[in-house]
Amino acid sequence: MLDEIIISIDAMGGDNAPEIVIKGIDYFLKHEGKNRNAKFLLHGNKDILSKFLKKSNLTSNCSVIMHTEKFIEMDAKPSHALRRGKGSSMWNSIESVKDNVANVAVSAGNTGALMAMSKLQLRMKPGVTRPAIVATWPQKNDWCVVLDVGANIECDEIQLTEFAILGDAFYRALHKKDKPTVGLLNVGTEELKGNAVIKAAHERLSGGHINLNYKGYIEGTDISNGNIDVVVTDGFTGNIALKTAEGTAKLIGYLFNKALFGNLWSKITTFANSYSLLRLKRQIDPRRANGGVFLGLNGIIIKSHGGTDHIGYANAIGVALNLAESSFMSEIDTSLDLLHKNEAERSFK
Amino acid sequence: MLDEIIISIDAMGGDNAPEIVIKGIDYFLKHEGKNRNAKFLLHGNKDILSKFLKKSNLTSNCSVIMHTEKFIEMDAKPSHALRRGKGSSMWNSIESVKDNVANVAVSAGNTGALMAMSKLQLRMKPGVTRPAIVATWPQKNDWCVVLDVGANIECDEIQLTEFAILGDAFYRALHKKDKPTVGLLNVGTEELKGNAVIKAAHERLSGGHINLNYKGYIEGTDISNGNIDVVVTDGFTGNIALKTAEGTAKLIGYLFNKALFGNLWSKITTFANSYSLLRLKRQIDPRRANGGVFLGLNGIIIKSHGGTDHIGYANAIGVALNLAESSFMSEIDTSLDLLHKNEAERSFK
Repeated sequence: MLDEIIISIDAMGGDNAPEIVIKGIDYFLKHEGKNRNAKFLLHGNKDILSKFLKKSNLTSNCSVIMHTEKFIEMDAKPSHALRRGKGSSMWNSIESVKDNVANVAVSAGNTGALMAMSKLQLRMKPGVTRPAIVATWPQKNDWCVVLDVGANIECDEIQLTEFAILGDAFYRALHKKDKPTVGLLNVGTEELKGNAVIKAAHERLSGGHINLNYKGYIEGTDISNGNIDVVVTDGFTGNIALKTAEGTAKLIGYLFNKALFGNLWSKITTFANSYSLLRLKRQIDPRRANGGVFLGLNGIIIKSHGGTDHIGYANAIGVALNLAESSFMSEIDTSLDLLHKNEAERSFK
Repeated sequence: MLDEIIISIDAMGGDNAPEIVIKGIDYFLKHEGKNRNAKFLLHGNKDILSKFLKKSNLTSNCSVIMHTEKFIEMDAKPSHALRRGKGSSMWNSIESVKDNVANVAVSAGNTGALMAMSKLQLRMKPGVTRPAIVATWPQKNDWCVVLDVGANIECDEIQLTEFAILGDAFYRALHKKDKPTVGLLNVGTEELKGNAVIKAAHERLSGGHINLNYKGYIEGTDISNGNIDVVVTDGFTGNIALKTAEGTAKLIGYLFNKALFGNLWSKITTFANSYSLLRLKRQIDPRRANGGVFLGLNGIIIKSHGGTDHIGYANAIGVALNLAESSFMSEIDTSLDLLHKNEAERSFK
């Protein structure tokens, strides 16, 4: 474990930046980060940031402002941001990781721009085509991770196999589990099972050459039921599954609220049971899952939801710190080496 | 509206058939079907069915047993079922529709076998390649329909356009809405939007040649939020979205149950609020959405979940009756004609 972790922050990125960014760091330092040794490089406008830092002793004490007046708009086109974005708070926050000044970067800014800049500056690990975005998903007593959730719309079998390896290393590092279970997302009915790419990925993952606890095909219901730790899928399906689940959770939350607070009597009985219900609310709070991670780069980049509040942002900081403290990067290197050796042997045959 | 609707029933299909089948018809006749003129052809073993009918005056009074000793196992391979299945309760239930003896058929049996037998006996409507399975999905105050949810793993743009037309006609017939909104399921981020097939389908649907209330791309969250009536997607994505939503709903239900009944105090307060909570339970009851429909065939086939109970089965019967009474089949014919005329003009150019 490193003595001190330096977290590079795109302080101007996000719908409500920089206010929620500073508040989020503060919240983190007050709660989860109490006894942890983290320092923050705040990339952004000095005048604006100083104003917020004055109100926040905690963050002020362990951070340095890296001044820039440039920042990336939330709706900027990634290609445009890439051409014009050098020197922006987002660009500089990634550069700090590239130059080994920081261990990890966090941004709540424009996803496409962050992805493009991260690729350009950090480059992909050997053999990896594009970064995958990994999301964390709640289960009964635990979490699973799902990847890719939007970076790669069309994937071939080698990419899916890479996702399995990246996700496995990510899970081991973040959730401290030796042999996480890995599943390949597919449709249910026997006869219709999968397309050619899924079948080819399944064959590769089943081969036993790669050191994974691979459990085979899983279905949509398995994501939440707690049987699998790492869910592998292409970015199109993963994105739609994630957002469909979000929508379902919101709908049920709305209906429950109506049942619990719809009239005076239900309000009274709900109040009487408020302890259990508050705990439940915390359990299904989507902010606890904030902090998507770009996998496959030579460096760790964390993407927070653009519209999150300070509690969600604090969670993304927590993910950044846990990953930076872990053996994640070296685990990934070892697993990717094994995969590419295996692929080379395949093509030699 | 027809004077009398004849519903052909695969009485031996389903995990708990024929018991829940007879109980389901009974439940339907007692509740939703009270004043509706429906008769039932029960395909299955006479000895077994008679035993259950003895306990059930309601069903017995309006049904005829069509004896056969053959039935299709729930785990049979569709190709095997197709070769050996002639004369089975499933085969015969479809045959009644083909021969115009019945207006609609319902089965809770093996999905793949039902699909294969339906295609072989009823044939596809001109120009339709494979049937799509349409599922009903709860929203805040209403329902939407999603198709395809599993019959077509890989779809081209013409199939997706057909799904839009089939779904629109289905929604109009079943939900009595003149101009249902239609959306094409896609991923969110601007730059990464869709693959080539989705873009081509979007272009076709936007063209205005087809008489649809097409709203463009939608995201996973839109399925539940009530903005769209007909959700168009390929069978792979649709199946995974549906099952992911089911899993999320189950997880939240489990957590809520724990919060509401976890200790004596929460049990008491929950009991005090039981009226609102019971209404809620009914609202999110998955059995209310039971009854997938095969679209694109020359005849109406309803697929009930194999593991449903009598209340779920009764719901599938309700869907069958509503569809048989509606102008669904002729609406579809008109819309498909328009589509194929449009496609022919395209290829002529």
